[in-house]
Amino acid sequence: MKKKDILKEVVKHIDIKKINSVPIVDAMRDMSFTSRDTAEAADILNKMIRDKGCTVFLTIAGSTSAGGCMQVYVDMVKANMVDAIVATGASIVDMDFFEALGFKHYKGTPYADDKLLRNNYIDRIYDTYIDEEELQVCDMTIGKIADSLEPRPYSSREFIREMGKYLTKKSKKKDSLVQVCYEHNVPIFCPAFSDSSAGFGLVRHQWDHPEKHVSIDSVKDFLELTKIKMAAKTSGLFMIGGGVPKNFIQDTVICSEVLGKDVPMHKYAVQITVADPRDGACSSSTLKEASSWGKVDTVYEKMVYAEATSVLPLIASYVYHKGYWKTRKKYEWAKIFE
Amino acid sequence: MKKKDILKEVVKHIDIKKINSVPIVDAMRDMSFTSRDTAEAADILNKMIRDKGCTVFLTIAGSTSAGGCMQVYVDMVKANMVDAIVATGASIVDMDFFEALGFKHYKGTPYADDKLLRNNYIDRIYDTYIDEEELQVCDMTIGKIADSLEPRPYSSREFIREMGKYLTKKSKKKDSLVQVCYEHNVPIFCPAFSDSSAGFGLVRHQWDHPEKHVSIDSVKDFLELTKIKMAAKTSGLFMIGGGVPKNFIQDTVICSEVLGKDVPMHKYAVQITVADPRDGACSSSTLKEASSWGKVDTVYEKMVYAEATSVLPLIASYVYHKGYWKTRKKYEWAKIFE
Amino acid sequence: MKKKDILKEVVKHIDIKKINSVPIVDAMRDMSFTSRDTAEAADILNKMIRDKGCTVFLTIAGSTSAGGCMQVYVDMVKANMVDAIVATGASIVDMDFFEALGFKHYKGTPYADDKLLRNNYIDRIYDTYIDEEELQVCDMTIGKIADSLEPRPYSSREFIREMGKYLTKKSKKKDSLVQVCYEHNVPIFCPAFSDSSAGFGLVRHQWDHPEKHVSIDSVKDFLELTKIKMAAKTSGLFMIGGGVPKNFIQDTVICSEVLGKDVPMHKYAVQITVADPRDGACSSSTLKEASSWGKVDTVYEKMVYAEATSVLPLIASYVYHKGYWKTRKKYEWAKIFE
Amino acid sequence: MKKKDILKEVVKHIDIKKINSVPIVDAMRDMSFTSRDTAEAADILNKMIRDKGCTVFLTIAGSTSAGGCMQVYVDMVKANMVDAIVATGASIVDMDFFEALGFKHYKGTPYADDKLLRNNYIDRIYDTYIDEEELQVCDMTIGKIADSLEPRPYSSREFIREMGKYLTKKSKKKDSLVQVCYEHNVPIFCPAFSDSSAGFGLVRHQWDHPEKHVSIDSVKDFLELTKIKMAAKTSGLFMIGGGVPKNFIQDTVICSEVLGKDVPMHKYAVQITVADPRDGACSSSTLKEASSWGKVDTVYEKMVYAEATSVLPLIASYVYHKGYWKTRKKYEWAKIFE
Repeated sequence: MKKKDILKEVVKHIDIKKINSVPIVDAMRDMSFTSRDTAEAADILNKMIRDKGCTVFLTIAGSTSAGGCMQVYVDMVKANMVDAIVATGASIVDMDFFEALGFKHYKGTPYADDKLLRNNYIDRIYDTYIDEEELQVCDMTIGKIADSLEPRPYSSREFIREMGKYLTKKSKKKDSLVQVCYEHNVPIFCPAFSDSSAGFGLVRHQWDHPEKHVSIDSVKDFLELTKIKMAAKTSGLFMIGGGVPKNFIQDTVICSEVLGKDVPMHKYAVQITVADPRDGACSSSTLKEASSWGKVDTVYEKMVYAEATSVLPLIASYVYHKGYWKTRKKYEWAKIFE
Repeated sequence: MKKKDILKEVVKHIDIKKINSVPIVDAMRDMSFTSRDTAEAADILNKMIRDKGCTVFLTIAGSTSAGGCMQVYVDMVKANMVDAIVATGASIVDMDFFEALGFKHYKGTPYADDKLLRNNYIDRIYDTYIDEEELQVCDMTIGKIADSLEPRPYSSREFIREMGKYLTKKSKKKDSLVQVCYEHNVPIFCPAFSDSSAGFGLVRHQWDHPEKHVSIDSVKDFLELTKIKMAAKTSGLFMIGGGVPKNFIQDTVICSEVLGKDVPMHKYAVQITVADPRDGACSSSTLKEASSWGKVDTVYEKMVYAEATSVLPLIASYVYHKGYWKTRKKYEWAKIFE
Repeated sequence: MKKKDILKEVVKHIDIKKINSVPIVDAMRDMSFTSRDTAEAADILNKMIRDKGCTVFLTIAGSTSAGGCMQVYVDMVKANMVDAIVATGASIVDMDFFEALGFKHYKGTPYADDKLLRNNYIDRIYDTYIDEEELQVCDMTIGKIADSLEPRPYSSREFIREMGKYLTKKSKKKDSLVQVCYEHNVPIFCPAFSDSSAGFGLVRHQWDHPEKHVSIDSVKDFLELTKIKMAAKTSGLFMIGGGVPKNFIQDTVICSEVLGKDVPMHKYAVQITVADPRDGACSSSTLKEASSWGKVDTVYEKMVYAEATSVLPLIASYVYHKGYWKTRKKYEWAKIFE
Repeated sequence: MKKKDILKEVVKHIDIKKINSVPIVDAMRDMSFTSRDTAEAADILNKMIRDKGCTVFLTIAGSTSAGGCMQVYVDMVKANMVDAIVATGASIVDMDFFEALGFKHYKGTPYADDKLLRNNYIDRIYDTYIDEEELQVCDMTIGKIADSLEPRPYSSREFIREMGKYLTKKSKKKDSLVQVCYEHNVPIFCPAFSDSSAGFGLVRHQWDHPEKHVSIDSVKDFLELTKIKMAAKTSGLFMIGGGVPKNFIQDTVICSEVLGKDVPMHKYAVQITVADPRDGACSSSTLKEASSWGKVDTVYEKMVYAEATSVLPLIASYVYHKGYWKTRKKYEWAKIFE
């Protein structure tokens, strides 16, 4: 079996604009278990959008972008439903930027022969495949962007902004999250930026330029994100998966205090996850637990225990079709750093 | 807080006829993870319906009937999408028969004060409440039906048929699964029938009639269900949760062999579950594992790892709106026992 | 690859008498998460044993007996730590009775080629194998026992007692749970008895004797188990997995009420499970939830979220080596049915 | 209820030196499911220790350090069973460094009233409590260390080394991982260092010194860690939880290629996790999946699906008491950066 026989069927990203989940979510509201949780999560996201003065933070961990939800995030930004993003490096670089360069994700199977895949330079994410040779092009593109920049410490946000600028000239697919956020002044933070395809490119850059080079300062990320929280005051969190992005955005409340500025806890919070809260890890910690830390208020919070590709499209489509974003203020938080 | 203040909002059952999930499921087919699994499960159920000569077995474990999916099952039977049912006693008696008597399930919260509920005779299923006094009426109704029958061993199917007959005269809600199956000659089996509200009524019946009484013979259940499999030959399984119903229907293939009649493995199989396969329990065992036992074929099988209320409506609505049931043969397997 | 090459390494059952977990459990008591839960579960089981007048019910669901814990249950009965058992049919017949006949379980792998296994008549439980031809001998032995009995309805307890009697003459392995319980007058209930190897044998028996035959009356099971609860009054539950056994023993409190005799809720309760409480299924329902039903008291209850083979040996060894069973009263509840 | 009444019972860390798990693990090897996986994981860790020339990387994510396993890691380092560590910032700073400063974790309950905790400045991790005021001291200590350093980009390893040096003078508890690793030249990497208590201190430092300040360059982390992998060649991974540490260490194989030096895949790999592989997230991705990326070899790999506090002590104690570390070579990888 050859590579082109394995990489045959591309993953296509769901279009929440074309699919109207309002009737289904309205029915789920009066059911039980995960269906009701899904409807209540949609209601809380809708409240964030309707609350004048509320900044919406989207966090993305896991592989939903590879798994068919990439356009959901893009459409949310274009519809002014999201004001800032905190994500894993993989979501932003290996998946979104990667597709912006013209590459694709492919449908595979979790029962694959991983040796066969290895021999064909195919990487597997559960039931989804990536062409590793294309991923190397992505790594090297990051390296080239770094080579072109003034050598100094950057926040991941600054670097991702440069990636967005690069895409305005070079992208093969125009509708990437990196480019759309650049154009809409929605800042993207990846607090563990090196832990991704970007890391390979940047390590190569530093290896080639041992003295003077770009570095990625995650402290700067934290400071910048906290500045947004301090400016925004009222805020809501829409969290896909957990991980570093979840913890990072929650911690901005405490970080503001550390800088001497009291800000309100995050007023709204939704998390979609399959994680199990009993191991005490951040990814799985409940939002009620977060309230003990003074990070998240408990009036409007909902954990949805589900694999996100199955419920995120329902939630996002619901809020999209309710349409309150049409009259919503644009924050363009990226501008405060210029 | 009084009972009537706690039991205020009723659970309403989703109507797959009114909600058209075809566009969403069609989009999910080209995504990854649980969304793709959901679409593939819908496709397999659709294949079962289209396969002339295929008997569809529905199994129900867990609390989806209480949790807003009760009408899904009723509509599937009315649309001739299901030919026989294997279920837990709770799904059939405590939930479906209970609502047929005019009672309701109520929306609650998993963070309830269980002592307060206890003091108000309110029973909790995660985020759903039941009035225990109403449940006692249900228990006693079962006892009365038993009192009215000839004392001898019955299969659960025979007894549930009597419950259906009772409802044709006494039901307050006409559209119950027990009554609709009675009317459409779709047999219902509860292999662990006593493990439910029915158990209380039947124990009371035997206590009051120590010498001559109705007994429930689960061996007879197994024999009858195997007779259907032997008559049906080609079969597909649509399984909500696992438990005894899952194991029971799978075992009919082996049981036929034991009776000297070779039958084909179940040709199609879908299971929706949150169970974790790593503990070796039947509920969570994969369908691939079942194939080692010679129970289930592996060409058309799909595990959907999701809480069922979130994906079952999508799957059932999809197959309903594809409409292949309209020209499907009626099996009326209940008739072979008359 | 031939059958004898696949079935090479036998599963050996852990011996809690030889392994002293007291130091480990004592350390776990001051840790967090599952380790502390494990220690607290051991403490509650120990309390049950020390509480004069407390009857201990053991429930077994899942495949721990096949997976190396079979001797744990036997040793608990021999050490007078268990007074009655409620189990799945598979645990008692396919696993325990099966090994009593001289057969074994084998170490396998979850990554097996299930087609290869099928062709060799090897059945797989996750990473454990069974010789299907041996299992058929087990089925048929049940059939022969049924053939030898007076035709009438039996509780599963009565039938399992006959299996114990059979083993006193015919067993190849003396230390089976079925035989040891027979000898110690510890009753075993399988409320879904037919859902096991026993079912095949009994169906064959009824098929061969269509007019007069043994039937298994699960109502009788429920009545008998409730009679023990009514006689025992104070009780504790030690539950491995969930399923029908968990629900059945919990329901005896309610069933006593139905028969006009108020009994106390189960005073102690431990459950070891990997199930997820969010689907509203009984297997996964928390013990706090059970308290809303008036089944289980909440002073001494503990859910241990773990795959049981990893923590059950620690808990059982701890209580064994604490030694309070040495002076404990013997209840021999089986005698009340004679 | 006052703070001192809530923070009463301290979490005590298990001592693998005093507890000998060899008999239990030896028994588990012939069982099934998680018990056998646990034994096989212990065997693989033992192989890493015995393999002359193999560098052992320990990764730590989640809250096991707070939850009673802190001393396990320290003892592994002191016994020369670990050559480099990749961890979350929280494990190293909020938990380990925090206790080095003389503070404690406390036993709590997952059913806490989080509002009450909030009002008392108590932070909750599932069933474990932390005094937030003590945590602020920890934050500020990091800030002071940063203030004392030359302003330039640091890898997290460099900064944590400074923390170790600080502790040699100021620690109240001598046996911390940070200090012991400093003394044994075992480098610690936190690729998402700011996502922790350290972040607060460092943000404060940069806020106070806007022009010239310490920054944390995660690219440098990746480069340094890759240099160790390139020097080490043969390597084994012992991973507690997943997250960024898991991904980061796995990626060093690819990163070496990017730098033009082919290195072997990680030869051994063990991961203990409760994560569910079906969401495509890195934390939960199987080691077989990692082999498709060319990161991990599949001959000696084992996923143990368990909450780590319940099985890590068994595994670590087993390898400790087997004693092969006594004659093992010391790598002191920290020295290559000096």
